[in-house]
Amino acid sequence: MSEPGDDFVSRVRANFDLQNVMKLIGARLTVVEPGHVEIELPYRPELGQQDGWFHAGVLTTIADSAGGYAAYTLMPPGSNVLTIEYKMNFITPAKGEKVVAVARVVRPGRKMTVCELSVDSIDAGKRKTCVLGLQTLVRADWTPAAKKIP
Amino acid sequence: MSEPGDDFVSRVRANFDLQNVMKLIGARLTVVEPGHVEIELPYRPELGQQDGWFHAGVLTTIADSAGGYAAYTLMPPGSNVLTIEYKMNFITPAKGEKVVAVARVVRPGRKMTVCELSVDSIDAGKRKTCVLGLQTLVRADWTPAAKKIP
Amino acid sequence: MSEPGDDFVSRVRANFDLQNVMKLIGARLTVVEPGHVEIELPYRPELGQQDGWFHAGVLTTIADSAGGYAAYTLMPPGSNVLTIEYKMNFITPAKGEKVVAVARVVRPGRKMTVCELSVDSIDAGKRKTCVLGLQTLVRADWTPAAKKIP
Amino acid sequence: MSEPGDDFVSRVRANFDLQNVMKLIGARLTVVEPGHVEIELPYRPELGQQDGWFHAGVLTTIADSAGGYAAYTLMPPGSNVLTIEYKMNFITPAKGEKVVAVARVVRPGRKMTVCELSVDSIDAGKRKTCVLGLQTLVRADWTPAAKKIP
Repeated sequence: MSEPGDDFVSRVRANFDLQNVMKLIGARLTVVEPGHVEIELPYRPELGQQDGWFHAGVLTTIADSAGGYAAYTLMPPGSNVLTIEYKMNFITPAKGEKVVAVARVVRPGRKMTVCELSVDSIDAGKRKTCVLGLQTLVRADWTPAAKKIP
Repeated sequence: MSEPGDDFVSRVRANFDLQNVMKLIGARLTVVEPGHVEIELPYRPELGQQDGWFHAGVLTTIADSAGGYAAYTLMPPGSNVLTIEYKMNFITPAKGEKVVAVARVVRPGRKMTVCELSVDSIDAGKRKTCVLGLQTLVRADWTPAAKKIP
Repeated sequence: MSEPGDDFVSRVRANFDLQNVMKLIGARLTVVEPGHVEIELPYRPELGQQDGWFHAGVLTTIADSAGGYAAYTLMPPGSNVLTIEYKMNFITPAKGEKVVAVARVVRPGRKMTVCELSVDSIDAGKRKTCVLGLQTLVRADWTPAAKKIP
Repeated sequence: MSEPGDDFVSRVRANFDLQNVMKLIGARLTVVEPGHVEIELPYRPELGQQDGWFHAGVLTTIADSAGGYAAYTLMPPGSNVLTIEYKMNFITPAKGEKVVAVARVVRPGRKMTVCELSVDSIDAGKRKTCVLGLQTLVRADWTPAAKKIP
């Protein structure tokens, strides 16, 4: 559990800045609340699959990070969150000007956390759920040396 | 089923070239056989999560495309393959000089295909399985108009 | 889509009565609304795993049927619903006097349907979510001959 | 890891006998090797879904227990194995005289284990894979009091 006086928002933002792939795709951390994180991603042709729509793997990338940070908001400083597994259902193609990944912790735990994930598309201003997921995460201790790997 | 005289390798390679995200991350299509496709991805710091290792979403991106193309090798020209859902287990962190996604069709179908997926890391020359997955795909007709979307 | 004048409640109840395994474990169909079905299962020691709690497979059995019937409420008479795949997270052991599976259609479709599933335990009157799941189903035509199989 | 002189086969068999649901459905433990367990289930009409075939939940029940015991063969005496989550793909209906669940540990761990699961049907002597799955399990300490619950 995050401790009194712990600034979990700064912790999450600093860790997000370490995820280079977020920069590569152009993702932005937009909501950081206890057990609830959102990440937005504007459309760019570079993110497309064969039809030009957002690739399923790109949608998964922001959903996975949103879930990791939702878990991290409830963990003590010095924690490292790792994804154990997830499942995603793609219920409609993701097209439009941007997508928003929403993650909520449904089972917080000292070692293991479970999140519900979704990704919505905003297409001509209309919001539609494109992806639904369930994710399991595990808490490890943060080891700065790890950052040098590989 | 792919028809006699159908050059499924060219079809798959041409479709792969339409997936802009493959270029963005630097992925290469290396094996295209009936019901079996492999995609390689050399390490670059831009693909990292907070520890500098390959982000789970990046591993998923190449695994998903490998599965889509493994399914596509067994489908007639003019098909469009869409991912319905997948599940991935991350059994060890993916670090090293490159990763290789391997997809095999385990249930071919006229409409629906199921693939087994894995992603291996090559670290100082040693190969290790990092991700195991199961994926369901559906065949649609290819509509060129779709390529203009969004 | 179910047609005007179609009595989907009777259809669902009649089909439920064909699922012998529901009788074997003692499950009861309690809610049948459009896109929403619930199945209850009172505790009996015969349903236990090694600790005496409800076995994960038993919880899955009622969640799967609830999802199938939630999908069936939105399909025309003469349909047969088959499960393509599901994923379940077991977030806390299921103990208590009964469990309730709740299924809601989140993506209705002519061929393919996706449901969100949960199973709650009622323990000394307190309700707690024990299982969360996502399920994909496909519509086939009902062939009476199938009932003679195997 | 199981210790020298540890009779993991007896441990697994004794624990299997505590799972009352195995008796209810008529399942038999047939193979117990390090990291590999198989459970067989002869057909009975009581196990059927609406077509008379094995219900998906019943197939899942034996697959889940097979995975739990495959994990348990590699754990020290005094462990209790709990399922965290699983995913199952149903690739063809399970009909025939019996089904066989096969579980293999693909990632052994001190706390967390991952198994690959499958269920095959034997129909007029012909064997066919009906279900493929991936399962995550966690080791807890065995607390005899738990057996009195609920």
